[in-house]
Amino acid sequence: MSNQELVVEVAPQGAACCAPLTEAPLVADQAEPMAKMFKALADPVRLRLLSLISSAAGEVCVCDLTAAFDLTQPTISHHLKVLREAGFVGSERRGTWVYYWARPENLKRLSVLLDSPGLTSG
Amino acid sequence: MSNQELVVEVAPQGAACCAPLTEAPLVADQAEPMAKMFKALADPVRLRLLSLISSAAGEVCVCDLTAAFDLTQPTISHHLKVLREAGFVGSERRGTWVYYWARPENLKRLSVLLDSPGLTSG
Repeated sequence: MSNQELVVEVAPQGAACCAPLTEAPLVADQAEPMAKMFKALADPVRLRLLSLISSAAGEVCVCDLTAAFDLTQPTISHHLKVLREAGFVGSERRGTWVYYWARPENLKRLSVLLDSPGLTSG
Repeated sequence: MSNQELVVEVAPQGAACCAPLTEAPLVADQAEPMAKMFKALADPVRLRLLSLISSAAGEVCVCDLTAAFDLTQPTISHHLKVLREAGFVGSERRGTWVYYWARPENLKRLSVLLDSPGLTSG
């Protein structure tokens, strides 16, 4: 085995990206993964699904999520897959159903990015 | 003229929308305008433009924004229009050029929505 160090390519969103937009311009390498995450949030059904999972006390069964919408289960599952791939939720199949839980770290990154220190919300 | 009160339809994003996703599920009327705002952020060029405008000390000339990208001015102007329609920037034409400034209120709303109180950023 060689002594060469293994260079692992780390996706930019894995880093502590980024400072608030109000503080410094984003470079292209930072903007790409952030834009992808915003795209995952750019759908009202996905936002509602994410809010249901994020505000739940623990895991949520896909069966309960589907029951909250007037949509087919494949449609709900597609939206959940987008949220999972963006890193906003985790999931595990157990028996018949898939269970989802919140992974708030990436949401927090986006929240920091959009924050305007000193501006109160309203 | 009738005595009937005029009912003005107020876009939901005009209200103090919304509590953090971690606190309460979004209803459809709240999710729609929020998803539209996230869509405006779901493009790396728009994110970079917004960061350039938001981190500037004052107004920014479209001429300086165009110079920062390897894109045509119509393309840059299209992206700026999307940001303006989402309420993230204001603009004014003066002479040859259009000038842009940050309007951070809607960004702050999204920041609050995605915040996870108690979770540190990283």
